[in-house]
Amino acid sequence: MTGKDTGVEIPAAWYSILADLPDYDPLERRPPSDLGPPADGPVRLSPQLPLTMYRQSVSRERHVPIPDEVRAHYERWRPTPLRRAREFEKYLDTPARIYYKHEGVSPSGSHKLNSALAQAYYYKKAGIQELATGTGAGQWGTALAMACRAFGLGCTVFMVRCSYDQKPQRRAIMEMFGARVVPSPSPLTRSGRAVLADDPDSPGSLSIAGSEGIQYAWEGTGRRYASGSAENHVLLHQTVIGQEAIAQMRRLGEFPDVVVAAIGAGSNFAGLAFPFYRESLDERRDTELVAVEPKACPKLTRGRYGWDHHDASGSMPMSKMYSLGHEFVPPVIHAGGLRYHGAAPVVSWMYHQKLMSAVAYGQREVFEAGLAFARTEHIVPAPESAHAIRCVVDRAAQARRTGRETVILFNLSGHGLLDLGAYQQYLDGSLPEDADFDDLVPAGGER
Amino acid sequence: MTGKDTGVEIPAAWYSILADLPDYDPLERRPPSDLGPPADGPVRLSPQLPLTMYRQSVSRERHVPIPDEVRAHYERWRPTPLRRAREFEKYLDTPARIYYKHEGVSPSGSHKLNSALAQAYYYKKAGIQELATGTGAGQWGTALAMACRAFGLGCTVFMVRCSYDQKPQRRAIMEMFGARVVPSPSPLTRSGRAVLADDPDSPGSLSIAGSEGIQYAWEGTGRRYASGSAENHVLLHQTVIGQEAIAQMRRLGEFPDVVVAAIGAGSNFAGLAFPFYRESLDERRDTELVAVEPKACPKLTRGRYGWDHHDASGSMPMSKMYSLGHEFVPPVIHAGGLRYHGAAPVVSWMYHQKLMSAVAYGQREVFEAGLAFARTEHIVPAPESAHAIRCVVDRAAQARRTGRETVILFNLSGHGLLDLGAYQQYLDGSLPEDADFDDLVPAGGER
Repeated sequence: MTGKDTGVEIPAAWYSILADLPDYDPLERRPPSDLGPPADGPVRLSPQLPLTMYRQSVSRERHVPIPDEVRAHYERWRPTPLRRAREFEKYLDTPARIYYKHEGVSPSGSHKLNSALAQAYYYKKAGIQELATGTGAGQWGTALAMACRAFGLGCTVFMVRCSYDQKPQRRAIMEMFGARVVPSPSPLTRSGRAVLADDPDSPGSLSIAGSEGIQYAWEGTGRRYASGSAENHVLLHQTVIGQEAIAQMRRLGEFPDVVVAAIGAGSNFAGLAFPFYRESLDERRDTELVAVEPKACPKLTRGRYGWDHHDASGSMPMSKMYSLGHEFVPPVIHAGGLRYHGAAPVVSWMYHQKLMSAVAYGQREVFEAGLAFARTEHIVPAPESAHAIRCVVDRAAQARRTGRETVILFNLSGHGLLDLGAYQQYLDGSLPEDADFDDLVPAGGER
Repeated sequence: MTGKDTGVEIPAAWYSILADLPDYDPLERRPPSDLGPPADGPVRLSPQLPLTMYRQSVSRERHVPIPDEVRAHYERWRPTPLRRAREFEKYLDTPARIYYKHEGVSPSGSHKLNSALAQAYYYKKAGIQELATGTGAGQWGTALAMACRAFGLGCTVFMVRCSYDQKPQRRAIMEMFGARVVPSPSPLTRSGRAVLADDPDSPGSLSIAGSEGIQYAWEGTGRRYASGSAENHVLLHQTVIGQEAIAQMRRLGEFPDVVVAAIGAGSNFAGLAFPFYRESLDERRDTELVAVEPKACPKLTRGRYGWDHHDASGSMPMSKMYSLGHEFVPPVIHAGGLRYHGAAPVVSWMYHQKLMSAVAYGQREVFEAGLAFARTEHIVPAPESAHAIRCVVDRAAQARRTGRETVILFNLSGHGLLDLGAYQQYLDGSLPEDADFDDLVPAGGER
């Protein structure tokens, strides 16, 4: 059995990849533009995080214990199943063995709850009363709404307008859990007003919603901005995924040749891939780590590596990362969680060091793969997760050509039950063509 | 741990309650009106079921082995978790211990897949090429679409029009799995056309959709009508739920005082309650079995016990059952799965013999309970399941008044992730008042 009953344990600690990347400096940041022009060189900034979480984001300690209160919540659905996609393999007619880690079974429907609970716990302990955030497809917003409710915090979610319009059910579920949901750009904040003045019909973006969340948090007392990805501590919290997967694969006598995950800013990718980075070092295996991004927002394959802001208004510190520019507004695609202009600094660094690879796909080919997976494995994948599946399809075809029994593991980061409208569009043939990225960013990008 | 890791096994056999109800005659049927006027007395009819399944519907053998091919599918998500609702208990401030069986984790999102897979398997073996059916909220249609895909059968689903309009996502998911979805009443069938001639705006009902499914099946070759509830073999297939629950409760050293489940026609109720009927006989326990119905469609509490048709047009054989009349069109409520005029014959018989009880609730109080459960337990219940939860709230309050540590078990038959629009209406205050049943059925009913 490769499912829920593999008998592995929830890890006792999160895994910090910083311990294994001695040349990467997590303290290297530049101040936000609100604090004046960027300093001449890198400066060291302490963000407004609870001290424990700040330490998590910079510490080189390999194992960071998971607090009992957080672990007790994890026990409600973790360990998540690791399954072999046998019917999908048959459909793909491949000698590859395809496994997936099913994070869609979480109460919020995605991996995002792993970090939301940890953050709500630390902020609550630090005396904070309310968390604000930005959300794309709503997976992060839903997770934070649930986590805030679990730990007795208020929650305000700035939801990217195009997702707000596409997915009314997402708004409903966040409101069910007591969150206030505001379509972004909104007139509530300075940076929202600035975007609306420029373009009243702006579809929004994760970086705009992030700016709004930060500014809203700053303007009140007892409020903080909770980040759903990009930051080291968020990536850290997700490593329960990969650690469980290693134990589950081991029980099956398997080790992946390829580990695949979609990338928005990087929490889903890091959650699965980082522990395998360590493990492949230990096992002297040449495991490939692949991040999959949308062609509409190809920060790794088409972005530039350099200093940039995490949010549209430049209210957050600058990081060195792959980015399409913090003012880039990606075209509207259904995988709203991947519409982020940059990649997490540590993921960017690894990509720059060629410790991982990346590939980009268009929306239609992604939905085609997602539908094929749903029809064979009976799980509707979130559009974000369907990006990983699209890459798996290619790797499985490659295995067929070479006759190699490649072992592929991917992260099914969330279910797509609130994205059925998008699948209906694909079935109806009304899913729009992908925008041509070169038309959007004439300057292109370079690696 | 009271979750997925309780280490119990999927049962090897379904449990037939007919073995324990010697006075109930499963062969007692009257011919459909299409075959002429009802005979003077009960006649014995053999429906167009594959022989194995027909035997299942009438046999008094207590244990009916589950075929390996069906069990292999069950293994993908069964045993389903049995959980204690500790946070809900706290919220209700009750000494009662509340457990729930979580059937919402199935690939189709509800318990319905337990029977859909079994039926698709038997029909496929019998050489059938396509199954037709009627669905209310879409839970049965979704399950049948998945099961047909799994066993290589075509699938046509007549979906009650009000649900079709309320829940476009349900249509999408059925189409994803290759089913053809037709809003009912439709111009495709004789009985659909008759209803439309009478009322072009008819919201439809499960009994109309059932008539359409049957007539559609009759008019083609290699087609059969698959029933989602009411029939003995369907109830039988659902008994995996209760059998697992018994084993899971036993490992916790618990036995329920009250077993609660919503009732449409009875498959959800029977699935959980029937095995406990047997078990409480064995254990000499006075366990109460409670079926919960909507006030808008109160077949047990307000219906009449007598001969009636299962479908609106009278195309199916008549059964002796509690019914509001086969032509009754229930008012539109979100729990579309409960909008059925009658109760399964064997459930009706048990109710008539006072071997179980029943209670009815209004839509708003049901959503209030469903929302409270979602907020405390982080699972959005289907509106059907929220009926059971509403009853649990009352029993928990009773326990508080009496100070008794009542052990309550209910069936969380499905998740409500495709019903978020209904919860949004409740939150917005726009959920309609319940229709007054007495205005709908002036003749009332009697027990």
